[in-house]
Amino acid sequence: MNIKSISYNIGRILLIEAILLVFPAIGALIYKETTLLSFAVTIAALVITGLLAVRKRPENNSIYAKEGYVIVALTWILMSLFGALLFYLSGYIPNFIDAFFETVSGFTTTGSTILREIESLPRSLLFWRSFTHWIGGMGILVFVIAIMPKTESSSMHVMRAEVPGPSVGKLVSKLRASARILYGIYCILTLVQIVLLALGGMPIFDSIVNAFATAGTGGFAILNNSIEGYNSVYAEMVIAVFMLLFGVNFNLYYMMLIKQGKQAIKSEELRWYIGIVAASVVIIALSLYSTKHDIGESFRYSFFQVASIITTTGFSTTNFDTWPVIAKFVLLFLMFIGACAGSTGGGIKVSRLIILIKSGLRDIKKAINPRSIETVKLDRRTVEEPIVKSTSVFFGTYMLLMAVSMLIISIDGRDVVTSATSVISCMGNIGPGLGAVGPYGNFADFSVLSKIVLSFDMLAGRLELIPMLMLFSPYAWSRKYS
Amino acid sequence: MNIKSISYNIGRILLIEAILLVFPAIGALIYKETTLLSFAVTIAALVITGLLAVRKRPENNSIYAKEGYVIVALTWILMSLFGALLFYLSGYIPNFIDAFFETVSGFTTTGSTILREIESLPRSLLFWRSFTHWIGGMGILVFVIAIMPKTESSSMHVMRAEVPGPSVGKLVSKLRASARILYGIYCILTLVQIVLLALGGMPIFDSIVNAFATAGTGGFAILNNSIEGYNSVYAEMVIAVFMLLFGVNFNLYYMMLIKQGKQAIKSEELRWYIGIVAASVVIIALSLYSTKHDIGESFRYSFFQVASIITTTGFSTTNFDTWPVIAKFVLLFLMFIGACAGSTGGGIKVSRLIILIKSGLRDIKKAINPRSIETVKLDRRTVEEPIVKSTSVFFGTYMLLMAVSMLIISIDGRDVVTSATSVISCMGNIGPGLGAVGPYGNFADFSVLSKIVLSFDMLAGRLELIPMLMLFSPYAWSRKYS
Repeated sequence: MNIKSISYNIGRILLIEAILLVFPAIGALIYKETTLLSFAVTIAALVITGLLAVRKRPENNSIYAKEGYVIVALTWILMSLFGALLFYLSGYIPNFIDAFFETVSGFTTTGSTILREIESLPRSLLFWRSFTHWIGGMGILVFVIAIMPKTESSSMHVMRAEVPGPSVGKLVSKLRASARILYGIYCILTLVQIVLLALGGMPIFDSIVNAFATAGTGGFAILNNSIEGYNSVYAEMVIAVFMLLFGVNFNLYYMMLIKQGKQAIKSEELRWYIGIVAASVVIIALSLYSTKHDIGESFRYSFFQVASIITTTGFSTTNFDTWPVIAKFVLLFLMFIGACAGSTGGGIKVSRLIILIKSGLRDIKKAINPRSIETVKLDRRTVEEPIVKSTSVFFGTYMLLMAVSMLIISIDGRDVVTSATSVISCMGNIGPGLGAVGPYGNFADFSVLSKIVLSFDMLAGRLELIPMLMLFSPYAWSRKYS
Repeated sequence: MNIKSISYNIGRILLIEAILLVFPAIGALIYKETTLLSFAVTIAALVITGLLAVRKRPENNSIYAKEGYVIVALTWILMSLFGALLFYLSGYIPNFIDAFFETVSGFTTTGSTILREIESLPRSLLFWRSFTHWIGGMGILVFVIAIMPKTESSSMHVMRAEVPGPSVGKLVSKLRASARILYGIYCILTLVQIVLLALGGMPIFDSIVNAFATAGTGGFAILNNSIEGYNSVYAEMVIAVFMLLFGVNFNLYYMMLIKQGKQAIKSEELRWYIGIVAASVVIIALSLYSTKHDIGESFRYSFFQVASIITTTGFSTTNFDTWPVIAKFVLLFLMFIGACAGSTGGGIKVSRLIILIKSGLRDIKKAINPRSIETVKLDRRTVEEPIVKSTSVFFGTYMLLMAVSMLIISIDGRDVVTSATSVISCMGNIGPGLGAVGPYGNFADFSVLSKIVLSFDMLAGRLELIPMLMLFSPYAWSRKYS
């Protein structure tokens, strides 16, 4: 393990976090908020730690797969710890574990909150809270790759560990170029959303932070009643459409940019994604219609909530915890599925679901005719067997980690639905669950142990298991394999 | 598809079902029960159908993998339909779908019941109901292989489709011999349990039917309060120990018989099985102790229930639906895990869990060191990669089928816990779930659609997915691949 190189790289990122914190700090200065001092201290702590780490450039800056994973895991944990420091110092989240949970929830774009009351927070903190979604959505390390003047070829290992999905499709041969393209698309889409929200009459500040939370598919709201609080069909529809847009593989936008739009539309994952959304909207709308809502209202609520849950954003426009059971089950399964690979969304990803279903069908075919040679295909290309296998293993590991987490959470003694869905929601980076952690609830009442486990689950879900699980592997820390 | 050979083979089995029905019919005759006529009609229907099917021995009796699966799937469905006829004609289950559900639950050794009141049933029906567990436990087709004078080499395909676990370990080179050994061990263990229960003062009839339900890891009780109704610690302990014994891979008993006991004890699956049982018993006992029970009572309830659930039997000695949440989660996960491969138990099987965990760990190691070549080992032998892959795919398919089933069940509008655990319990062939289908509840209130889906799930779980899923595959019925 190249410890020097790891700490050098993490140091650089902590310095960037300090720079990112300057934006809300300026706001705190302008509005003369009491949070200014906390910003100053947090930034100072980041700068000192960062400078200590980057003081000496390591002679051997080689990063292999193992170092890549460790950098990603530690970066996310450290950024969250420093981010928590801000909330803690400000006094608005007086418990450090709560502050840590809230920050992890921000960076991982989960959007689960321990705050019972949101509207009383000062604007600088609200801005920072939503900004963490935006930073975490595309990935902080991808950001680093995008802005760094010189990109080592070994950065591939870092990018692979941070970008969601079964495999990283290199957009263009140069890594730095592709990271810039990704961030370019991300910035433009965010800007368009801000403008559209503002045009609809939403205050500028709200438009910005809601766009951040949408872009990162995070879901932190700045009103206690989430998007329901705006009571605006226009705002709901803009946000719903943009949530779905941010849940699409960004490679497809790049393909459209280079005039390969036709090919982008043929993407199998995109078609499944649209199909799943459409089917879910119809099922839920029908179930709502069969209860008390009129048809328009049914589709309005259903469309927003399906978009919010499959993209793992977690905004709400109504308390879906009171919906018919079938609607709740649809939402639960969407929590598992998640958005497309290469998007800012969480979950196991649509492309993994496709591979899982296709490999199940393949095994049935093989049972019928053992001599047949069948391959799993995606976008008409054969998915290599190691990827088919690791996709299934990923799913198994995901479920096992969920089971273990639920077991620990259940020590708190909360009901089965609350305990189970809090884990499902955190692992999938969604935000709300059902029961006491439903859209009108929050995560405040969990024990310290549960909050640590759920924070771990959010990070494991966002980084797709391996970086976080590796930290517990003696194999990773053994000198023998360094 | 060799239709003639399929119908010939199924015909033979229906004739055997007729013979098996003669035992309870004799009981009905002796006790002069009103059910005698229903037995006579059912037996007649089976004999006529069976004789029509076996009338002409097909010239080409070759059975390939596909035919093997189809024979197994159709056999189980037809046996359940005829079995349902008996309950329906007797008038004790006046709804045919209910009768079908109850019979499927019997043969698949699930033990979920639609009866609100059990004790009023005549003895002949109670006997038959528990006897279906015993027949289904080791497998009706394995039974056929054991008693048939001549065994075609192609029977391997049938046995592979019916015996639970990732792969069939041929005990001895001759299939018929190994089927006989399995049934021999099965009969002896059942007899020993009957004797032990009777020695403890349980009425002979009760001893026999409870031993049937234990041996098949079924769980149909003949008292409304299941095993709690006997209020006997001795009976509970005998049943608990025998449930665990029937959850062990029968190959291990064979190894003990041929004096390879040392090797049998080294079995990794056995050690995990014992480890999981021990850990679960301790966790649940502690959680019970922390509430209101004394330490002895805590371990008594915990040991019985863990043995009952991991072996997928489903007997109960108390209403575990009122237990602390952590105890319920432990039981829920045991429902997924199930017993050992090659036992009479259901679930995904301990050996599959081991392979899943080890392949997850392997993928982490591979991420750390991409050049490393790691294999998944079980009992110090390398598990072949196709088995590793199909185990993961099995798990994925199992979860997907569960998700789809839950979605359909939830149309009934019952609460999340009831809807979810009814599917988990039926797929794993356990019996009770939580909520309204808990140990004090039953499956009577589900809609016809839900009962059909749950019956399908019980069969899919017992036959380990492929035979049942194949019935829906156009590929299986296409002439092109016949």
